[in-house]
Amino acid sequence: MLKVGIIGATAYTSLELIKILLRHPEVKITYLGVRRTDRPKISDIFPALKNLLDLTCETIEQKEVPKDIDLAFVTLPPTISMQYVPLFTKKGIKVIDFSADYRFRDKSLYEKWYKAQHTDSKGIKTAVYGLPELSRNEIKKTNLVGNPGCYTTATILALAPLLSKGLIYPEDIIVDAKSGVSGRGREPKEDTHYCECNENIEAYSVGSHRHSPEIEHILSIKTNQRVSIQFVPHLIPMNRGILCTIYAKPKDKTISDNDIHKIYNGFYKNEPFVRLKEGNEFPKTKDVIYTNFCDIATKVTDNRIIIISAIDNLIKGASGQAVQNMNVMCGFDEGMGLL
Amino acid sequence: MLKVGIIGATAYTSLELIKILLRHPEVKITYLGVRRTDRPKISDIFPALKNLLDLTCETIEQKEVPKDIDLAFVTLPPTISMQYVPLFTKKGIKVIDFSADYRFRDKSLYEKWYKAQHTDSKGIKTAVYGLPELSRNEIKKTNLVGNPGCYTTATILALAPLLSKGLIYPEDIIVDAKSGVSGRGREPKEDTHYCECNENIEAYSVGSHRHSPEIEHILSIKTNQRVSIQFVPHLIPMNRGILCTIYAKPKDKTISDNDIHKIYNGFYKNEPFVRLKEGNEFPKTKDVIYTNFCDIATKVTDNRIIIISAIDNLIKGASGQAVQNMNVMCGFDEGMGLL
Amino acid sequence: MLKVGIIGATAYTSLELIKILLRHPEVKITYLGVRRTDRPKISDIFPALKNLLDLTCETIEQKEVPKDIDLAFVTLPPTISMQYVPLFTKKGIKVIDFSADYRFRDKSLYEKWYKAQHTDSKGIKTAVYGLPELSRNEIKKTNLVGNPGCYTTATILALAPLLSKGLIYPEDIIVDAKSGVSGRGREPKEDTHYCECNENIEAYSVGSHRHSPEIEHILSIKTNQRVSIQFVPHLIPMNRGILCTIYAKPKDKTISDNDIHKIYNGFYKNEPFVRLKEGNEFPKTKDVIYTNFCDIATKVTDNRIIIISAIDNLIKGASGQAVQNMNVMCGFDEGMGLL
Amino acid sequence: MLKVGIIGATAYTSLELIKILLRHPEVKITYLGVRRTDRPKISDIFPALKNLLDLTCETIEQKEVPKDIDLAFVTLPPTISMQYVPLFTKKGIKVIDFSADYRFRDKSLYEKWYKAQHTDSKGIKTAVYGLPELSRNEIKKTNLVGNPGCYTTATILALAPLLSKGLIYPEDIIVDAKSGVSGRGREPKEDTHYCECNENIEAYSVGSHRHSPEIEHILSIKTNQRVSIQFVPHLIPMNRGILCTIYAKPKDKTISDNDIHKIYNGFYKNEPFVRLKEGNEFPKTKDVIYTNFCDIATKVTDNRIIIISAIDNLIKGASGQAVQNMNVMCGFDEGMGLL
Repeated sequence: MLKVGIIGATAYTSLELIKILLRHPEVKITYLGVRRTDRPKISDIFPALKNLLDLTCETIEQKEVPKDIDLAFVTLPPTISMQYVPLFTKKGIKVIDFSADYRFRDKSLYEKWYKAQHTDSKGIKTAVYGLPELSRNEIKKTNLVGNPGCYTTATILALAPLLSKGLIYPEDIIVDAKSGVSGRGREPKEDTHYCECNENIEAYSVGSHRHSPEIEHILSIKTNQRVSIQFVPHLIPMNRGILCTIYAKPKDKTISDNDIHKIYNGFYKNEPFVRLKEGNEFPKTKDVIYTNFCDIATKVTDNRIIIISAIDNLIKGASGQAVQNMNVMCGFDEGMGLL
Repeated sequence: MLKVGIIGATAYTSLELIKILLRHPEVKITYLGVRRTDRPKISDIFPALKNLLDLTCETIEQKEVPKDIDLAFVTLPPTISMQYVPLFTKKGIKVIDFSADYRFRDKSLYEKWYKAQHTDSKGIKTAVYGLPELSRNEIKKTNLVGNPGCYTTATILALAPLLSKGLIYPEDIIVDAKSGVSGRGREPKEDTHYCECNENIEAYSVGSHRHSPEIEHILSIKTNQRVSIQFVPHLIPMNRGILCTIYAKPKDKTISDNDIHKIYNGFYKNEPFVRLKEGNEFPKTKDVIYTNFCDIATKVTDNRIIIISAIDNLIKGASGQAVQNMNVMCGFDEGMGLL
Repeated sequence: MLKVGIIGATAYTSLELIKILLRHPEVKITYLGVRRTDRPKISDIFPALKNLLDLTCETIEQKEVPKDIDLAFVTLPPTISMQYVPLFTKKGIKVIDFSADYRFRDKSLYEKWYKAQHTDSKGIKTAVYGLPELSRNEIKKTNLVGNPGCYTTATILALAPLLSKGLIYPEDIIVDAKSGVSGRGREPKEDTHYCECNENIEAYSVGSHRHSPEIEHILSIKTNQRVSIQFVPHLIPMNRGILCTIYAKPKDKTISDNDIHKIYNGFYKNEPFVRLKEGNEFPKTKDVIYTNFCDIATKVTDNRIIIISAIDNLIKGASGQAVQNMNVMCGFDEGMGLL
Repeated sequence: MLKVGIIGATAYTSLELIKILLRHPEVKITYLGVRRTDRPKISDIFPALKNLLDLTCETIEQKEVPKDIDLAFVTLPPTISMQYVPLFTKKGIKVIDFSADYRFRDKSLYEKWYKAQHTDSKGIKTAVYGLPELSRNEIKKTNLVGNPGCYTTATILALAPLLSKGLIYPEDIIVDAKSGVSGRGREPKEDTHYCECNENIEAYSVGSHRHSPEIEHILSIKTNQRVSIQFVPHLIPMNRGILCTIYAKPKDKTISDNDIHKIYNGFYKNEPFVRLKEGNEFPKTKDVIYTNFCDIATKVTDNRIIIISAIDNLIKGASGQAVQNMNVMCGFDEGMGLL
């Protein structure tokens, strides 16, 4: 049994991570770390876990690494995470980090967007971006994975086939993204007050969301061209789920729906967690929430290709993907605990 | 034109109050007071008011009373309110107070439940409980109204006819109440986080909600008997609306649906804001939200009378009722601005 | 008092229309027509109207026109509406039609999209498109208004200033639209089942929504150029409200946020129902629902202008706009009953 | 591997059942039957199942029994179910029936409430009521289980400890129940239209819900006394979850919270799916949805005991409980596939 710890156990993503890990036959949760000192039981923080996991959360310290861990899921916020991750990797403990701290190969890009100096230069250089559909072989060999953002996952999986084949203009892409409220985190703020979110839709961070450079950075590296996107996220009155509606311009205006379907079918033919929709069926977030699936459909119109993708932001956009990465890193069946 | 001020302008109830007052033909809002010092425009706090009311909010002070006000709506929290109300009443300004500070005739009862000494003994003694359906004549003559709580309004209107006629046992009453989230106020807390409220229902303050003594106190006074209720409130994933399902025991077991309908029809026959439902139709909160109506239905079963009432907690449960009280106090048509 | 009738009284838009008209000081509802024969009271169909309007609905017939009507709001479905409208106009009764039957100047375009022959050639030719912000003078003089679609209103108001000034490429516009469920009508279908809509977002009619040609048609006429849009609507788990996120390409890449703000401020400076947002504030549907406002914000990014608009689909997108049109047609103050 | 079939595969409960069975290590779904003739793939009906189960649904006929089934889950509506169940039992196939057809030992009671003659007298006599917490030993030995209703499960589990010990008056019990909309089934009706349910709460079937006699019948049998309840269900704007707030009268007025906790802890001490809450924590439906748990809390007040229970109506209230019953019937670990 692989012994795993969660560093930052009180996040919404951690709750989902725990639920998945409890169903995983090869894993045992041996440690839960929190940045508070009162040592609560995890089932007091999340009563949903009562009778399932009644472990006490330990206070994480910046000097010590908990014993008895083979792999750590770090679910701390960006800029905090990099203070802890090196402690684990130095001891030979595998790490899957949920923050943005290990998602960029370009340190200066990170520092520009996260407005902080990156203190783990070695880590950021060696970390692998944990999107198994694009980097499975690198993930197999690494000890440090930067787990992708939720919007990023939905967008990259939607665009990778077309960009890889050079079929669309890489600098004329619009991503109109819609997310449930759990994407805003668990801290109570005016933004997340029930009466502010319910019966409301709004755009936010227009022209300045941090997932925008992450998407461009990764797609540029993975498809060998300068990719530039226009990204606008919206907040939707639902707990979980992301839908991305993407507008791309084909280089060849005679390309057909059928052509595109073939490309996507080829690109994702062996992927257990990508499902393609055809025949005027389009993704619904309700079909992917509580699962690790990404559903994708495409539609050719007059002078655009529309690509629509849906994921659960907490699962394929965070905790499910992290477990998928763990499975790849540790040689387990990739769908273990996730199907 | 009556010049009115709102003391505590940033509450959800104040937004609703402003919207109603803007449609009232005899009233002009001349003052908005807040307990902060940055003098925001009300339309910056509530963008819904842009182009409708762009007044600047003034900092309220405990010594001065704003000039140019004939009537003040005080929407401050309990225990804070009583620090301001006497300043207004002393100057001859009419006051309608939204907190619990002027709802109890019995000072000690207030002090027990609100865990604070009441500092305005004269006010609490002379204030009139502002439920026009039960106290219209007293409201006409007073300068100080204690505006009822939301659960209280829905419960008292549902029970008053039966208790007044002595038809049910006054100490064997169960009130199972359900409220939308705006009832919890505008402050962001874990309790009001979207993801905690959405797709969830829960009971709270079981056996200890502060509206419970208010209901008992007022019903006892108004119906001349010791009324005791079992009150359990629940939080419902919706913005606004309250439904109370009330279980009472008839003294006469042969009483019929028809008998009860006659009693309610008689009791409320001239009331503009009470609507009675018959023939197996029951109140839905969606029919009363954004209105000042209270919808009520009754049903006789084996050994109980079930009474169901619905109001908008922010309108008939707060701001609409306050305007109704103002109309009564000032001799306007009672439905002015409210229909 | 203007005597008005509603032909098709059981639609969601009719309920909103009735509520507005009841507050309108110059109007009396004298007739409600329905396409069923059981003559229900309107307050039985919509219990929210109890005590407000208890009128009996009459069965509409294709031969007779109800007496005692000065103006008819026709809220029947497309292709049905044109069977009734001419009966009214022939008698000199003013008509505001909610369907698409009188929105197109080009009969063949209508027939292509609505898959039916248009049987009122004279009507479709003389009808005025009822968007007061663009056609106020024509509306003043007409007896027959085609009331705009909801998506159409939000999109046209967002784009008109830029297109009128020739500042964006008219054939490179993307409209990503999001609507509450009331936009789908009142008929129970799998699509509108609570459990299918709640906790879900999905795109629909991708590349084939009927509001797409309406938007292109009207914008082309009004701004004298061939406008072509890419329109994708989405269904959002909320009752009402539309948000349109629009991506346009500026002809002059050096155009600034400030330039754009000036243009919008100039274009809409005397409009009572258009509110412009600046300074990184963006529209929220919660600020416009239950009102006749359209809130608009713009943002210049690298190579796009993003325009975001929000309306209540049932008010500014239907019934409020119809009353605004009535006010213009009848010489009432334009905001009467709507503010 | 146990070969199971689902008869009535298009219900919401069937979707949940399939998801659970796919994770069950000892079971294989070999047959899906539907009452329509077009033989759809289950993943076309429920796109959420794509890549998980792409089985074709077969048309069920009243004469033949599908081959290759060891156990049948029958999810047909009441009065239809009993036309199919005997075909299976006769062939020695185990049956777990979701309708009310096999929940009553008293045929006449069933016939009164379901307004139909019961055509399987032998079945109704021998069927076991499938609430493992109360009837585990009988379930072990039977071939035919009547799976309990959702409200019934939540109510019986809440009341059984107190009634079994004779601590409350069995004829003075009030059950105020609240359910998500999936409890109303998948058929589109005015009742289940999104805009009718969202932002609304209402009571329904006041004094006449069919779960009322089921609760009384089973509790009377299981606790050897005539139990009579006052049951009022409410519809809550959420997809799934039931909360029951129950008001009972203690025979001994000196009974304490602590006494009650001991009784519940004793009664449920070995139950894997009942979780008890203490210390002023009360059940929230969000903690039990997507699980087979029933959370219960109690509170003693002046002259009542309040018991609150929460389940997922589709899991512990239907499909999860059915799998729990299957596990008991087949000798599998009781939590298999459910934890």
